[in-house]
Amino acid sequence: MADLHLAVDRAAGGVAAQIARELREAVRRGRLAAGVRLPASRELARDLGLSRGVVVEAYEQLVAEGFLISRIGAGTTVAPAASRPAAFPVLPDGPSRAPEDPPRAARTRERDLEPYHGRRSTAPDLGAFPRERWLASMRRTLAALPAEAMDYGDPGGVTALREELAAYLRRVRAADVSPDNLVIVGGVAQGISLTIQALAGRLPRVRSPHDLGWYVRRAAHPAPPPGRIRLAVEDPAGGRQLPLLHAAGADLVAVPVDGEGVDVEALAATGARAVLLTPAHQYPTGVVLSPRRRAALIEWATATDAAILEDDYDAEFRFDRDPVGCLQGLAADRVILVGSVSKSLAPGLRLGWVAAPPEIAESLRLARGELDLGSPVLEQYVLADFITTGGYDRHLRRMRREYRARRDAFALALGEHLPEITVRGVSAGLHLLAELPYGWDEAMVAKTAEECGLAVEPVGPMRHAPGPPALVMGFARLPARRADATIRALADALRH
Amino acid sequence: MADLHLAVDRAAGGVAAQIARELREAVRRGRLAAGVRLPASRELARDLGLSRGVVVEAYEQLVAEGFLISRIGAGTTVAPAASRPAAFPVLPDGPSRAPEDPPRAARTRERDLEPYHGRRSTAPDLGAFPRERWLASMRRTLAALPAEAMDYGDPGGVTALREELAAYLRRVRAADVSPDNLVIVGGVAQGISLTIQALAGRLPRVRSPHDLGWYVRRAAHPAPPPGRIRLAVEDPAGGRQLPLLHAAGADLVAVPVDGEGVDVEALAATGARAVLLTPAHQYPTGVVLSPRRRAALIEWATATDAAILEDDYDAEFRFDRDPVGCLQGLAADRVILVGSVSKSLAPGLRLGWVAAPPEIAESLRLARGELDLGSPVLEQYVLADFITTGGYDRHLRRMRREYRARRDAFALALGEHLPEITVRGVSAGLHLLAELPYGWDEAMVAKTAEECGLAVEPVGPMRHAPGPPALVMGFARLPARRADATIRALADALRH
Repeated sequence: MADLHLAVDRAAGGVAAQIARELREAVRRGRLAAGVRLPASRELARDLGLSRGVVVEAYEQLVAEGFLISRIGAGTTVAPAASRPAAFPVLPDGPSRAPEDPPRAARTRERDLEPYHGRRSTAPDLGAFPRERWLASMRRTLAALPAEAMDYGDPGGVTALREELAAYLRRVRAADVSPDNLVIVGGVAQGISLTIQALAGRLPRVRSPHDLGWYVRRAAHPAPPPGRIRLAVEDPAGGRQLPLLHAAGADLVAVPVDGEGVDVEALAATGARAVLLTPAHQYPTGVVLSPRRRAALIEWATATDAAILEDDYDAEFRFDRDPVGCLQGLAADRVILVGSVSKSLAPGLRLGWVAAPPEIAESLRLARGELDLGSPVLEQYVLADFITTGGYDRHLRRMRREYRARRDAFALALGEHLPEITVRGVSAGLHLLAELPYGWDEAMVAKTAEECGLAVEPVGPMRHAPGPPALVMGFARLPARRADATIRALADALRH
Repeated sequence: MADLHLAVDRAAGGVAAQIARELREAVRRGRLAAGVRLPASRELARDLGLSRGVVVEAYEQLVAEGFLISRIGAGTTVAPAASRPAAFPVLPDGPSRAPEDPPRAARTRERDLEPYHGRRSTAPDLGAFPRERWLASMRRTLAALPAEAMDYGDPGGVTALREELAAYLRRVRAADVSPDNLVIVGGVAQGISLTIQALAGRLPRVRSPHDLGWYVRRAAHPAPPPGRIRLAVEDPAGGRQLPLLHAAGADLVAVPVDGEGVDVEALAATGARAVLLTPAHQYPTGVVLSPRRRAALIEWATATDAAILEDDYDAEFRFDRDPVGCLQGLAADRVILVGSVSKSLAPGLRLGWVAAPPEIAESLRLARGELDLGSPVLEQYVLADFITTGGYDRHLRRMRREYRARRDAFALALGEHLPEITVRGVSAGLHLLAELPYGWDEAMVAKTAEECGLAVEPVGPMRHAPGPPALVMGFARLPARRADATIRALADALRH
């Protein structure tokens, strides 16, 4: 039985979260080893002078995140995957080069006419962007910033923002991250693209020379082509990232998602060297990755020397409980966490981050130094100020309440007016999955829903293996008071 | 003799610039054909009721830009290269792909420890960044912007900024550009990287599909490796861009620069398919590309179906006359113009643009849509507002006066305290070239200069062919009143 020294500050509130944080840290740092049995919740509650419910809540949180295992009759123990030493796979050599005269690739001519900028079903309510507070942060930043800070910044991101974000991700996402292994990027897309390029051996590992003679001499020798990597993606998976993955050097294999998340046995059978996941709220199905699967995933990655890319795209919005901590927090040497403010503030800010093992983080930083010289610095300072001064937390709290109300109204209206539809994945995020009865035409329903003003996307193109017709339906932009009328109009139109 | 219909508004001022603009347009649109002789300056001045000096100034401007040719005894005629129909080279197919298991590249282990963010010799005075006005533009933007504008933007840049910039580039840089062939990028580095990738056939030409099955099927077929392109660069050339060029797919050849700019005959002998130039103010020598060379370059590009990349990095700051119009304005179908606000406002803003033939512009836009989803939108609107409301012009006028005073004081002090040094390239920009006497040690002088607080860079590593020892010396951050004491201190330290 573990001897726990937990520091709990009753006055500070959020006592269950405090206990969870302490236990998580203890597991992570090896103070609680794999297999160790924790005190029964009743005992620990008595020791701490707290109600048992508080301890149960903390244990449940850590079970969901994969740090603890709970078995009937066996009590609560530390999960095997949670405290295991492992070195991150060494990156292949890079950058590698292509021969001078490549054969020309055949390519598809199909043109996708969908506009780039539009109503994505996962988009936040942009009318709620905190303009006043953002402007106030900009004003403070411009008043205080030293002139030299307006120069080329560190291509890995300004220190002030990396510090604020690391603290935030530790606190809110239970991430295992320091400012040094955090890289600021222009959104999740760039973060994932660069990470895959790093894993495929396409990025520099050391700074390239700056003298002209070196390059002229080098041009005389044909260089090997850039690497590629076999990357597993979830099936179904969002379509917008696919071109980016392929361009970054990923050859895709698809792995089925069931009610617990990605199928790890099927994943292992693919021979993939890396997997891209959405554990907090799978896109599009909305499934939360189960504790069992979390453990199995980390075991797989460790045994096969593979990498896990965690796309934490909407994890701030969990409605029924604290957000499940990120997978990265469970195995910081295996998992690369990618996130952004696109759902929490606005996609147009193009601000995101990558938390990665040091070698990969440094490779990403070098790559931006040789690609686009990093993200704009002013907005990085503004976001840092926005977090420091509490504006970010306040905004998230307000939006969580608002989105919960919108989700409730939306799901209720669907149940009432379109009972044929099965609603899934509503525990978190800004969208739900609407499974249509067999025989319904996705595209037709999607078109009708759009005509009713809804932001939806058919799931068909997101699948490799066939599945039931379904739509991703965004609820974040639909005020709760309008949900009933809108869904009723949709039902009428569909029945018409 | 040409019959000119020039609309001149005497009340508006800048009459010479007006005449130059009208004539440029007439040549560009074919109203003045190659070889046509213009009226003598005296005649035209009489026709227009202006002083002859004004007409001479306009003619000289257009001769410098390569639109007109002036020969003693033969008068002023329209240059052959200036009005010649030509289609831009068709891009190679893309994106192309690499085989799955590449051989690992050998690579250098030399680590360059120079910090990324630091005192570049070409940096502007960041203390002069117009914070108040920038904040005012931000305030106006946040007050007026529709909520939907905070969504993912057009990856090619928001329309408002492309419109403002196109008008600005037409007016100030005599560029031949419309909002449609202008792409907003995160600075010159990204602009050049993407352009080279486009020329090497690495970028998408049409939108890629979004359905999972397509990618899974495609992964089964090994794809050809990404293309490379033989790119000529100036010798000497700035070192910071070299890793980026190489990574983007360029195999470099070096072409000497003399007192007229790049040696076009030597360029033709390299077999390069593209050339990267700094025509307005060669980096590092400061040479302005001569009218003759401009014509020869365009002839070369047309005859060999090659592309010219014009890095317009500090052209806003021309001190003795109007800035020489950009090369792109002379041959918009051959030249890709890349610029940014890094010298005019601050590098930390990471805002730049590429003006390119439509097919390349569209390819860049698609590439950003599949790479990082474009630049942050808020700052794009802010810059558009800053230009519209006159803030940008005002700032440039103020800085031009200030930098001219700094340059004068700096060059004067060098002449007085270090007469052994030959100063070159002072007609424009934020740096000059200081040629040291043979036998002086660049690195030692550079170190001493840095210890005196100067921002300098040794030219040696920028050269392929050997040349005299020299330093790039930045004067933009050194107030005029401190130039004499600083240079005297440098001279004392060097003589010590």
